Amino acid sequence: MSRLLELDARHVWHPFTQAGLADPPLPISRAKGSVLYTDTGREILDGISSWWVNLHGHSHPVIAEAVYRQALSLEHVIFAGFTHTPAVELSAGLAKVLPGNLERIFFSDNGSTAVEVGLKMALQYWHNQGVNRTRILALEGAYHGDTFGAMSVSDRGSFTAPFAPFLFPVEHIPAPLPGAEDEALERLTLALASGDTAVFIYEPLVQGSGGMRMYSPEILGKMLRLVHDSGSLLLADEVMTGFYRTGQLFASSITQSLMPTSRSGDIGAVSALEENHSGTGKSKTPGTPSPDIMTLSKGLTGGAMALGITACTPAIFDVFNSTDRAKTFFHGHSYTANPLACAAALASLELCLSGETADAVSRICAEQQAFWKQLQRNLLAENVRVCGTILAFELAVGGESSYFNPVRDRIYRFFLDKDILLRPLGNTVYVMPPYCFSTPELLRVHQAISELLEEANSW
Amino acid sequence: MSRLLELDARHVWHPFTQAGLADPPLPISRAKGSVLYTDTGREILDGISSWWVNLHGHSHPVIAEAVYRQALSLEHVIFAGFTHTPAVELSAGLAKVLPGNLERIFFSDNGSTAVEVGLKMALQYWHNQGVNRTRILALEGAYHGDTFGAMSVSDRGSFTAPFAPFLFPVEHIPAPLPGAEDEALERLTLALASGDTAVFIYEPLVQGSGGMRMYSPEILGKMLRLVHDSGSLLLADEVMTGFYRTGQLFASSITQSLMPTSRSGDIGAVSALEENHSGTGKSKTPGTPSPDIMTLSKGLTGGAMALGITACTPAIFDVFNSTDRAKTFFHGHSYTANPLACAAALASLELCLSGETADAVSRICAEQQAFWKQLQRNLLAENVRVCGTILAFELAVGGESSYFNPVRDRIYRFFLDKDILLRPLGNTVYVMPPYCFSTPELLRVHQAISELLEEANSW
Repeated sequence: MSRLLELDARHVWHPFTQAGLADPPLPISRAKGSVLYTDTGREILDGISSWWVNLHGHSHPVIAEAVYRQALSLEHVIFAGFTHTPAVELSAGLAKVLPGNLERIFFSDNGSTAVEVGLKMALQYWHNQGVNRTRILALEGAYHGDTFGAMSVSDRGSFTAPFAPFLFPVEHIPAPLPGAEDEALERLTLALASGDTAVFIYEPLVQGSGGMRMYSPEILGKMLRLVHDSGSLLLADEVMTGFYRTGQLFASSITQSLMPTSRSGDIGAVSALEENHSGTGKSKTPGTPSPDIMTLSKGLTGGAMALGITACTPAIFDVFNSTDRAKTFFHGHSYTANPLACAAALASLELCLSGETADAVSRICAEQQAFWKQLQRNLLAENVRVCGTILAFELAVGGESSYFNPVRDRIYRFFLDKDILLRPLGNTVYVMPPYCFSTPELLRVHQAISELLEEANSW
Repeated sequence: MSRLLELDARHVWHPFTQAGLADPPLPISRAKGSVLYTDTGREILDGISSWWVNLHGHSHPVIAEAVYRQALSLEHVIFAGFTHTPAVELSAGLAKVLPGNLERIFFSDNGSTAVEVGLKMALQYWHNQGVNRTRILALEGAYHGDTFGAMSVSDRGSFTAPFAPFLFPVEHIPAPLPGAEDEALERLTLALASGDTAVFIYEPLVQGSGGMRMYSPEILGKMLRLVHDSGSLLLADEVMTGFYRTGQLFASSITQSLMPTSRSGDIGAVSALEENHSGTGKSKTPGTPSPDIMTLSKGLTGGAMALGITACTPAIFDVFNSTDRAKTFFHGHSYTANPLACAAALASLELCLSGETADAVSRICAEQQAFWKQLQRNLLAENVRVCGTILAFELAVGGESSYFNPVRDRIYRFFLDKDILLRPLGNTVYVMPPYCFSTPELLRVHQAISELLEEANSW
């Protein structure tokens, strides 16, 4: 065992990892584009964008230079009483491209804190007005993060069991998965009837950690309409879906008529993407309400470093903006709007809005869609689905479809043996590439999946 | 109003800021050493290390270069199943200098998440062993962050009021402030008697946001001994106190006989610091138990960017390390152990352990102590206290000593008019300089405080 791995085994506690069961971690010494290089020279293709964060490729020189320039001039300054160009430009830039009128930006440091900020904004929005709305609605199968507030709105299960007595009550509505749409609408209608709902938090179009579970924009639109009409707030968690993962810049900006439908994909991410080329993604279908609050993280800095954002409408901000000090939003982190993170995010946003990135996303959507069609015919690939750049299916080799399905480790090692990083959620296999993925790179992943399905016949 | 301020007013939501009452924020275009430069050329002395994060001065070239080199080679990689040199070296480096045997490092992104991780570790530590210990103890006046878990263990007041129904129950013990020591011990003894306490969370020596409230190492040591002997875990929140703020590298490593006592300061931070020069800060007074879990953030990266760490003993880790997947610590953030942040932290740690930084800290402690003696004689400066590099007092011009004391804004503007950034907590004035502060710079702040006390006679 190398010195590095010895020290790692003695001193490092890896996230979501049972050290007593896991293989030793692979030491990565550098990364470029789509490839991770180990310290022994292996080249591993990053098929999940390093936990869904990377957009433009690893160690991107434009982002590196932007961070470096910033670090030499203003690495950080307290953001209460002070401001700076990178934060203001990023806020204004995002306000331009976010759907609806999400024009006000609150900064934090990751997805969990962005969700906590969103929940607190929603609760205090009603509190400041003296309105008794304290019920929180979320979806079954949701994942919103690991802090206590974020865990509370996430699906309750093995991840949260040791902390169950410390989570606040949340009403979980069935996710509107294909076949469960009516139940979802009924349960939502029932929950809203009490009139005390403060906020509904949801992952638009795709539940990520919950197993890449996809629902159609049409049914989601109906649910959002119900919530909106009841006077409650909509909190879209786009920590994973943001920045083109679903084909458009934000999942919430996909219009109903253009959105890919889960399982079928016929309308397709490709056409959705083409629409996006010509505009800022601000087009709204009449009848589909825009979120009042939205969280962003992961892809926000292009995958370079941690940053969280909670965007909201002027109507939310106005309820806090007052001469009454008690109405202040008393929330802040030391590194709120850290200039280095803002510089990385600005550089990434500029890359995102370039034709090159949009073209790459469009191409990847088409290639995933083509493979989706091919996979339909395979009996071992169940529930094959695609949404924009994300393709997913369940490997049907027995056992319940869950995070704890023991086939998970076998699939993980199968791909890693082929120098491909995919990280199945139980028996759910998914691909979520960075947009620098070339056609040969994506085809290599598709080929490996075909080989898995071949080999799994004998599992 | 400049274009920047217009955009800021339209798009940015500043932390802990009531926009309806606050002056427009000051735009900072660059910063170097102890000085923030506004876009109109004003030079503002940063007397609070930009919310207690900066150690070695702004835009430090060594940290900038370290981040840049890292950004060009490996900006980020998923930290589950993978590892990298910056994270391992930082973990091993911290394990060497942390007090006691805090040898296992879990990464997150800020102080709030570090606290959430620490609380979850403590709760699941008992849960994994099937032991029913779920009571959480904290101190009155505490501040541990703004996420729901961190708010729950913080003092309940105006900051948390809108979220009160969503906070889990925590038993708050009076802080052992001078005069309240016996009550603190009694209440703690009573709380521990039930035998179901999971963990006691505390800010060692200084409660930061609670108003720079200081208590003696002797009384804190007694409390820690009580908790430890009851079998409960100790969670030291060193997010603010870490990295020399209290004179030694960590407040928890200050030995009883060497620690400055609050209010008197006679034993003094200076002698404490000299001790530190000759060792790693690992010396422990027999009888003072070391923390089982410790949180770090703020100064961790030298003030360059967000990073959180929760360190714990092997005994904690061992309870999770198992072949039982249900005993996994299911917590992680996308950017866990981000290489850029680790590179900044490594560069800062190396600077911290240089003789130059230790000498600077020693000098600042002595200068703060000298001014502390001088301030004792001033009737308008109440409860003057010093702990290491931190000096604080209450301005006695009427009104309750609280965060909401209206004199706060007047004091803030008084210093800003002199191009000095101090940010009083209500009527509590404090100085917490970065260690690059020169003697003339610190004397300039002391002189301004003397002028405040002069002028406040007529307030």
